[in-house]
Amino acid sequence: MLTVLAGGVGAARFLRGLLRVVPPERVTAVVNVGDDVTLHGLRICPDLDSITYTLAGLVHPVQQWGRADERFTVRDELTRLGDAPWFTLGDRDLALHLHRTGRLAAGATLSAVTADVARAHGLGLTLLPVTDDPVTTRIRTVDGRDLHFQEWWVRERAGADVAAVTFAGADAATPAPGVVEALATAEAVLVAPSNPVVSIGPVLAVPGVTAALAATPAPVVGVSPVIGGRVVRGMADRLLPAVGAVTSAAGVARWYGARRDGGLLDGWVIDTADAADLAELADLPLRTAATDTLMDDPDVAAALARTCLAVAGVTP
Amino acid sequence: MLTVLAGGVGAARFLRGLLRVVPPERVTAVVNVGDDVTLHGLRICPDLDSITYTLAGLVHPVQQWGRADERFTVRDELTRLGDAPWFTLGDRDLALHLHRTGRLAAGATLSAVTADVARAHGLGLTLLPVTDDPVTTRIRTVDGRDLHFQEWWVRERAGADVAAVTFAGADAATPAPGVVEALATAEAVLVAPSNPVVSIGPVLAVPGVTAALAATPAPVVGVSPVIGGRVVRGMADRLLPAVGAVTSAAGVARWYGARRDGGLLDGWVIDTADAADLAELADLPLRTAATDTLMDDPDVAAALARTCLAVAGVTP
Repeated sequence: MLTVLAGGVGAARFLRGLLRVVPPERVTAVVNVGDDVTLHGLRICPDLDSITYTLAGLVHPVQQWGRADERFTVRDELTRLGDAPWFTLGDRDLALHLHRTGRLAAGATLSAVTADVARAHGLGLTLLPVTDDPVTTRIRTVDGRDLHFQEWWVRERAGADVAAVTFAGADAATPAPGVVEALATAEAVLVAPSNPVVSIGPVLAVPGVTAALAATPAPVVGVSPVIGGRVVRGMADRLLPAVGAVTSAAGVARWYGARRDGGLLDGWVIDTADAADLAELADLPLRTAATDTLMDDPDVAAALARTCLAVAGVTP
Repeated sequence: MLTVLAGGVGAARFLRGLLRVVPPERVTAVVNVGDDVTLHGLRICPDLDSITYTLAGLVHPVQQWGRADERFTVRDELTRLGDAPWFTLGDRDLALHLHRTGRLAAGATLSAVTADVARAHGLGLTLLPVTDDPVTTRIRTVDGRDLHFQEWWVRERAGADVAAVTFAGADAATPAPGVVEALATAEAVLVAPSNPVVSIGPVLAVPGVTAALAATPAPVVGVSPVIGGRVVRGMADRLLPAVGAVTSAAGVARWYGARRDGGLLDGWVIDTADAADLAELADLPLRTAATDTLMDDPDVAAALARTCLAVAGVTP
């Protein structure tokens, strides 16, 4: 089993590449839930849904999240009611939120709902929320406010400077069924090029996950989300400084840390544009590679996945 | 103040007529919540919404509930997910459910949300849910099952014979703010031609409402939901026998009872097609009138409202 620690869009594109290289039944994604939010009574899981939509071929091709051919009748009606949602709520997307909310209200776990939704979309991989327990990424702003991640990111468009990032509930959370097994028995653990702070961070904040990662005999190989010294998309550049990390391919590797030093990584794959960063990492016990990591082309994503497997020493 | 005990469609049409006769600020509707249901995590209040849509001119002109120009993108997506809803969920209608659910989750009362929604739709009357507490109409079927009213009525299309109707939560419910005042200070209380058992029944099941109705100096005048010996729409004919009532204009009046005998009514307005029923009611201390009660034409509804006011002894 190849077990991928995953956020949203970047992970979705990485998984799409990996699934061109290995059969889906060999892939498990352990997905961030820190972004999840309840709005208008609906439970919304952006990272799980971005992965589902991308792998099912339903994703909006430009924005890379939400549905292609989306409609906004409900949003327009909410606006008419004076309750314009600050979070994008497309009609088709809403159906999934309604489905999930109804199942959760009836007592299903998030992991059970996620598995059924993946099956309904014809996905062959195993899709696991990192935990069925509530874990919420909170942003403490420099101006002293405590915001849900989505309030900071979507509602305020990341306008406020970040003082600290915390994962409410993480200390008490246990890994969802299958997560520890997927890490313990993996051929390799791959860390998708997702936001280290708010996509991978909440996954690593669940104590049982940290323990399983420390104990697994599998190599852990990450992909840099920084390309050419810059974040491809999202706001890692707003968040990395808040956690004391440098926004560079080397800086992120150093923040994750080498496994032999108590950190996460055995290997680190960066973009060729950042090849100079390899020298900065020479003191870390990491297997490294530099390749094309910009995954606009699924063939590039597939080649990136092959590189990761090579660094991990795993045959595709 | 003219205070109207109201269910859904029949009450909506009656109120539309009444609002042609008197200014809206003189009208308060006390609305059934027993039909309310939580589906897919959303709080749905069919009677409140039917009244709102009808009075705002948004109602579907044929079915008389839900929105005209409705769309069903969300429902179709839910169906694709294998979760086809048995309750009609139109896109525009969903927006109101989302709005309400979000506000309730944030701590607002149903009466506060209802007032705001009415205002957002430009309604001038006062729209009150009978209670902010949970009251749910349950149907016990002859085959021994205990169903939510909507499960029996919509999901099973009223297929099962009814052994008993109960209003779960009613005993502990208190009237919503304004309800007791609207009854105590009314010029007249009008009972809309709604289903006596499952539309008016849950309103009367709230102890504080019963007490306020017994104590009010205002005359209480009802309109028969039976026309020509038959129920115009809905399923009162399936339910009246279950509560020991006869499906006729006289039978419903007798089931409500005359106020001086401990019942509800001081007056009773029936359709001219049922004029023969008046003889059956001769022993009851009721002021009665027979007129056209089929409200397909709003002018007829307005004339019906005038007749009710005349029976109540109130000047329009």
